Amino acid sequence: MTLDDSGYRGLVLEKLSAAGAKVGDTITIDHQGREYVGILMPRAQVGRDPDHVVIKLVSGYNVGIRLNELSEIHSIKSGRKRKRPAEKTTSKAQSDLPTVSILSTGGTIASKVDYQTGAVNPALSAQDLYDTVPELKDHANIHARIVMSVFSENIQPADWTKIARSVSSEIKKSVDGVVIAHGTDTLGITSAALAFALQDLPVPVVLVGSQRSSDRPSSDAAMNLIRATDFVGHANAAEIMVVMHGQTDDTFAYAHRGTRVRKCHTSRRDAFQSVNYSPLFKIDETGIAELSAPLLRRNPDRKLKMKPKFDDRVTIVNTSPGIKPDVIDSYVDSGYRGLVLAGTGLGHAPEHIHSALKRAIDAGVIVAMTSQCIWGRVNMNVYRPGVEMLEMGVIPCENMLTETATVKLMWLLANTKTVEKAHAAMSECIVGEISMRTEQSEYRIQSEAC
Amino acid sequence: MTLDDSGYRGLVLEKLSAAGAKVGDTITIDHQGREYVGILMPRAQVGRDPDHVVIKLVSGYNVGIRLNELSEIHSIKSGRKRKRPAEKTTSKAQSDLPTVSILSTGGTIASKVDYQTGAVNPALSAQDLYDTVPELKDHANIHARIVMSVFSENIQPADWTKIARSVSSEIKKSVDGVVIAHGTDTLGITSAALAFALQDLPVPVVLVGSQRSSDRPSSDAAMNLIRATDFVGHANAAEIMVVMHGQTDDTFAYAHRGTRVRKCHTSRRDAFQSVNYSPLFKIDETGIAELSAPLLRRNPDRKLKMKPKFDDRVTIVNTSPGIKPDVIDSYVDSGYRGLVLAGTGLGHAPEHIHSALKRAIDAGVIVAMTSQCIWGRVNMNVYRPGVEMLEMGVIPCENMLTETATVKLMWLLANTKTVEKAHAAMSECIVGEISMRTEQSEYRIQSEAC
Repeated sequence: MTLDDSGYRGLVLEKLSAAGAKVGDTITIDHQGREYVGILMPRAQVGRDPDHVVIKLVSGYNVGIRLNELSEIHSIKSGRKRKRPAEKTTSKAQSDLPTVSILSTGGTIASKVDYQTGAVNPALSAQDLYDTVPELKDHANIHARIVMSVFSENIQPADWTKIARSVSSEIKKSVDGVVIAHGTDTLGITSAALAFALQDLPVPVVLVGSQRSSDRPSSDAAMNLIRATDFVGHANAAEIMVVMHGQTDDTFAYAHRGTRVRKCHTSRRDAFQSVNYSPLFKIDETGIAELSAPLLRRNPDRKLKMKPKFDDRVTIVNTSPGIKPDVIDSYVDSGYRGLVLAGTGLGHAPEHIHSALKRAIDAGVIVAMTSQCIWGRVNMNVYRPGVEMLEMGVIPCENMLTETATVKLMWLLANTKTVEKAHAAMSECIVGEISMRTEQSEYRIQSEAC
Repeated sequence: MTLDDSGYRGLVLEKLSAAGAKVGDTITIDHQGREYVGILMPRAQVGRDPDHVVIKLVSGYNVGIRLNELSEIHSIKSGRKRKRPAEKTTSKAQSDLPTVSILSTGGTIASKVDYQTGAVNPALSAQDLYDTVPELKDHANIHARIVMSVFSENIQPADWTKIARSVSSEIKKSVDGVVIAHGTDTLGITSAALAFALQDLPVPVVLVGSQRSSDRPSSDAAMNLIRATDFVGHANAAEIMVVMHGQTDDTFAYAHRGTRVRKCHTSRRDAFQSVNYSPLFKIDETGIAELSAPLLRRNPDRKLKMKPKFDDRVTIVNTSPGIKPDVIDSYVDSGYRGLVLAGTGLGHAPEHIHSALKRAIDAGVIVAMTSQCIWGRVNMNVYRPGVEMLEMGVIPCENMLTETATVKLMWLLANTKTVEKAHAAMSECIVGEISMRTEQSEYRIQSEAC
């Protein structure tokens, strides 16, 4: 890439040209008494900050420096070609490092900026991913593989099945952990789906995304990927988890339980939050700190149980003011098998839709109740209309997230023999997705987490 | 009420009987070295804490004390009848106090416990409300009135119209402020609706609820009502606001802007949070502290502009995985005029429903985009599919809450002459419900708050 199509202009282009620096070169920048060393990255969206130059530091983190007339740029390895082992997708194994599979599904973390248009496309190959963050080779022996390449708002239940099967294939290779690069939009929903589809994991499986694309000075892509790789290589846990920034700066990341996490901000790096449960681990420079036991531990001999199918005839119904009973009727008539109500407060729905809910239940549709409050627990025993809904068969989802309840119901309908069994299992803890009022001990192994 | 139907049993009943105390009596309790003085309250749901006795302190706050064998109870005014001015709904005016209207719509704050069944019913009359919190007379001259008596999950757009008209009637009486007692489930949605329906307010109008019914030791009903009354009596603001606990203890309350507040927990007292905006005021023992200007100031001469109608053919569509395009088609075919998408991330929807959205827009349906993240701002310019939706006419709702956007669209469709005008106004700030990226100055008076 020449400087002309690097995206730089004006002052920055002038100084880079004077230094004979090209994209991919290692350069030093002397700026306001400090020296920065890193690889010159190309720019997109320069309209936002035309005087910034972006370099990738040795840490893997991209930093943007706003140049002024006094700033000096020197090229250390002008014209150096970046090493790009075109065919190999696995680095030469180092026996002292863990072996980690990185599966790419798309999203910002695995996206490539089109430097002509500035658009962000989910097109980064697994090899590109590995090349983009070359430091990964110092953290693990990497198997990189593309599963799909989509923006995560397009991920559908059939995709969860495909991702689950890919993870299973990687686990059969006896890796120490699996990292799934995924768009952040539905990352927390895919993580819940995989938690049901892939039970009794022998090793950790972590979904990771980034909120800022890799060409932006503030990108969290490299750091999140390195942290996730380190984490699955070493953590003593064998659950589906999500690793993302714990706060807006780079101080630490959290590993959240896959069924308990939600994207709660459109753009902040710390958008992901554990809801109604503590994060499982805190990850920082000093290592991995456990925050919340019990959890399923790493055990390479444990046999993975894969049940990757989902029935997508389930939907979320928000019971806000203005909802009409014919909405419920319409879902029943269209062959939906499950409705997850995002009710108000403790799990309420307007009384004028109660009879439609009863008709749905009588027709064999499973109706489950969560709260649009998001935080807290459904309790339908407090007020009379709640009690009436319980009596007609609406299932209270306790402190389960609406999205997790939806995914769970899709999974139950595809994996239980009868509607009755799906109904009963809906309010039981299977993979730590729900905490019951009363502790129960008869759950299976993963209910250590319940 | 005799002790037999007071709800007390066992140890508590024994001690109350020995003291000759009846419900409504002022009693003292000597317990673990402290003396408590208050009015003996009846109990419901004693199953939860059978050894507690509940008294109403002079502060108006109910406290539950867990008795033991050593606790002593004395009746100060055994058999005293509580004063109950059966006909009057206005206390004798004290000229140094503000005049405040309290409108009751139902919900926990205005509910009466059925001491036979323990069920909580929204049946407290305005007079009961006033009697229940007799201290109110020391804070304001009260006009009390019942508008309706429903659990707030049943509140529908036509009810907002009714409440708006009632508020307008009270304001015509030249009161210093209006308090609306409302169930918490949809309190934040009614507050948004009233903000559009009642513009250019001369005095403050505050919605207040309680998370715990008034028979429970932890009830926040009395305190919230007193705080709200004080607040509308004295605050220099003339907006629709919500006053609720700022944290779980009783230290302080917040006054939130009506279009910016959301119930974010099923049961905590501090469930209500301002989203993407600061609370407007903090209210504590020391008074009212202003947190966020600009806002519309109190001005008794300002002429209220009432536009109380809403078109309820608007609904929220959650674009979670599994959504099918025929859901959109079905709303269009059923005559809906507006769809508010709770999209993922920065405002995305699966591409397989884009053509259904385009058909909806071509059919004259207004489609607006918010984010199911709740926090943050929609930005559809970052990724190509977002840009495509903007081009087809999907309206980005910036940092507006999904529920507020829904209410706003219902209001616009009932109050603008053409769909085009409703479309244009959707992303403009009318009553502080949205903050624009770029400050604009041509808004009308209430846009001081935008």
